Amino acid sequence: MKAEILSVGTELLLGNTTNTDARDISEYLSQLGVNVYWHTVVGDNPARLTECVEIAKRRADLIVTTGGLGPTCDDLTKQVLAEAFGLKLRFNEEEAAGIRAWFEGRGHPMTENNLQQAYLPEGCTVLHNDWGTAPGCAFEKDGVRVVMLPGPPRECRAMFVHRVMPYLRALSEGEIVSHNLRIFGKGESAVEALLRDRMNAMTNPTLAPYAKEGEMLLRVTAKAATREAAEEMIRPVLDELRAMLGDIVYGVDYESLEEAVFELLRERGQTLATAESCTGGLLGKRLTDLPGVSAVYKGGAVVYTAESKTQILGVPASLIEEKGVVSREVALSLAENVRERFGADYGLGVTGLAGPDGDGAHPVGTVFVALAAPEGSFVRALQLGAGRERVRTSAAHHAFDMLRRRLTGLEVVPEEYA
Amino acid sequence: MKAEILSVGTELLLGNTTNTDARDISEYLSQLGVNVYWHTVVGDNPARLTECVEIAKRRADLIVTTGGLGPTCDDLTKQVLAEAFGLKLRFNEEEAAGIRAWFEGRGHPMTENNLQQAYLPEGCTVLHNDWGTAPGCAFEKDGVRVVMLPGPPRECRAMFVHRVMPYLRALSEGEIVSHNLRIFGKGESAVEALLRDRMNAMTNPTLAPYAKEGEMLLRVTAKAATREAAEEMIRPVLDELRAMLGDIVYGVDYESLEEAVFELLRERGQTLATAESCTGGLLGKRLTDLPGVSAVYKGGAVVYTAESKTQILGVPASLIEEKGVVSREVALSLAENVRERFGADYGLGVTGLAGPDGDGAHPVGTVFVALAAPEGSFVRALQLGAGRERVRTSAAHHAFDMLRRRLTGLEVVPEEYA
Repeated sequence: MKAEILSVGTELLLGNTTNTDARDISEYLSQLGVNVYWHTVVGDNPARLTECVEIAKRRADLIVTTGGLGPTCDDLTKQVLAEAFGLKLRFNEEEAAGIRAWFEGRGHPMTENNLQQAYLPEGCTVLHNDWGTAPGCAFEKDGVRVVMLPGPPRECRAMFVHRVMPYLRALSEGEIVSHNLRIFGKGESAVEALLRDRMNAMTNPTLAPYAKEGEMLLRVTAKAATREAAEEMIRPVLDELRAMLGDIVYGVDYESLEEAVFELLRERGQTLATAESCTGGLLGKRLTDLPGVSAVYKGGAVVYTAESKTQILGVPASLIEEKGVVSREVALSLAENVRERFGADYGLGVTGLAGPDGDGAHPVGTVFVALAAPEGSFVRALQLGAGRERVRTSAAHHAFDMLRRRLTGLEVVPEEYA
Repeated sequence: MKAEILSVGTELLLGNTTNTDARDISEYLSQLGVNVYWHTVVGDNPARLTECVEIAKRRADLIVTTGGLGPTCDDLTKQVLAEAFGLKLRFNEEEAAGIRAWFEGRGHPMTENNLQQAYLPEGCTVLHNDWGTAPGCAFEKDGVRVVMLPGPPRECRAMFVHRVMPYLRALSEGEIVSHNLRIFGKGESAVEALLRDRMNAMTNPTLAPYAKEGEMLLRVTAKAATREAAEEMIRPVLDELRAMLGDIVYGVDYESLEEAVFELLRERGQTLATAESCTGGLLGKRLTDLPGVSAVYKGGAVVYTAESKTQILGVPASLIEEKGVVSREVALSLAENVRERFGADYGLGVTGLAGPDGDGAHPVGTVFVALAAPEGSFVRALQLGAGRERVRTSAAHHAFDMLRRRLTGLEVVPEEYA
């Protein structure tokens, strides 16, 4: 199946918003084994939209549209698609009632133009929207399958997962299952080089690498008659990859390193506190992105100035004087002192130079990350390159990786970071 | 001028990466007054890429390609574009020398395939790449102007700003200047409703609204013979908008509320500390995204548990017991105590429920944000709706907005937040 994602919205062409819908849908479709060959973005203009639909009709078997289903006069995706496929729009009483109820439930008055959203192509499968007012729809005509989804990313994602995935799965025979192996500690190109021959030789399951902000994941996808059979096919591949890649694999189906740390701490009933200089709150922010993390995360200190390191966390001024703010010793003192002051089982401490300015003594990108544990302390000396955001993101990855390795009994400071 | 952005890369079609290049270039082109009518994404496949180029050639006057200029056999954008426009690729000695020097400078051995990047369409304008190895290029043929840029977002952005902007400006008569009016405290739709007639009536300068993560900006763009003349045209519009919108305007050409706060504190030689519960480090993270912020930001405490609020910042346990963790009183105590302990001029304190779980006493989205200033303390009681990320982002906006208003002598807690 050859798919095209057709996103409709002038805001995308003005650079006002990013087309995350196309990315999300592409990722979901690849999980279903559908090949996406084209993304197109066009504005809220009927003539240009019609031309783009004609092009998509000629080259794709599946067209997924996003955007242009709302209540304003700019919203014309359904009209244009219906016309291009020779379908009429029909008023759907059930969806109209749902739209009225949506407004009543929120105590907002409903203006009449909202009912425009209840007009849907004749004979279509209605994709009810529980996350907004505009329903989606799907139909097949002239050998092309069309799926229309609302544009707001939250609605688009939810509609794809809960409405379109079941709809497309019902069309295909068998089940498709994916698992993501999460990796930290080796570059994408090194992992790809290691696995290239293996990847190219695989057809079912398939293996695909994804880069994610200084980390990477390997997605293994299998298709089989049943979910269980697909899982059976994936298991030995995951085992083989774990054996090949070793302890740089930090888990399967985690969203992030901090999620792995959260789970490991929760299992053990242990707690964590953070002391951040150059990351300035990023560790705390990432941990508290996770609902329920208060069970394991006690909190932390953002000690951005030398004096605050001393005043708030008791890092000796003489130590800072002697070794410098950016040093192994200060990183260790931060981790140890925050652990003690918050009464946590583990403390993480980060100090370094995120740039753009250096301090004369070290190049930008020099970072020391320390872990204080009940049985002793550890520190990694890192050179994380240039780019303030990249340095900070990578420093946070390393902090979580150290704790993850400690909690799973691995060496915390491998030779390359010593 | 009708422009199409043609992004080449299978990773985009797999949902591995988001097409931020198309967004960035769209925003830059709109600043130049160029209308972007289409974005297209296609994979590293010569036949499909050729088809997409043929379509773009028919409908656009300007084609900007991103990606596919690198050294691997997947990189075929130049070959396909040159062929489509009947141009030969020529080896460029100067660029080849630059590529060799790039590798030497880094002490990496250069493999021969890297020199593929020095083949460029005959007669093109070379866009030298100071941020990577693949040069870009630009040419005009058959009434269509083509610009080719590398795909990595950092390179693509730098190349557009430093190479393509001057190139396109040199082609057009006159200068285009934009300024962004930054706004916090009123929804996008309310501002749009207020300005819709005014916006539609404007041609030069033009006025366009952009939504940015719970904030918004209004971009005023003017075209004139000289930069000075364009500035002259923009000034009265900015004044008029400020008069219409009042104190929800927090500045011109700032990147964020925290940048406005940073500038205001720096001018005054004053300092800030933060105490975060539900935002968990986000305020610190956002402040320390700004290089040089250590001049005004002393640091902060992430006090995610009730006990850490008491232990680290001395919030009385009896106060928490009596009023609850999510309360006006605890927010005020956080702000006042962090101000005192860090020896800062101002303290910000945030406590609330980001969700997804409530605490029984308050609905998700209840947040109290407090500001402790030398002359007294202030608190906003907020209901920020649902969605963990949205609640946290919005709470941080409010914290920075309170300090911004205090520093500019405005009412810190307008009636709607009292």
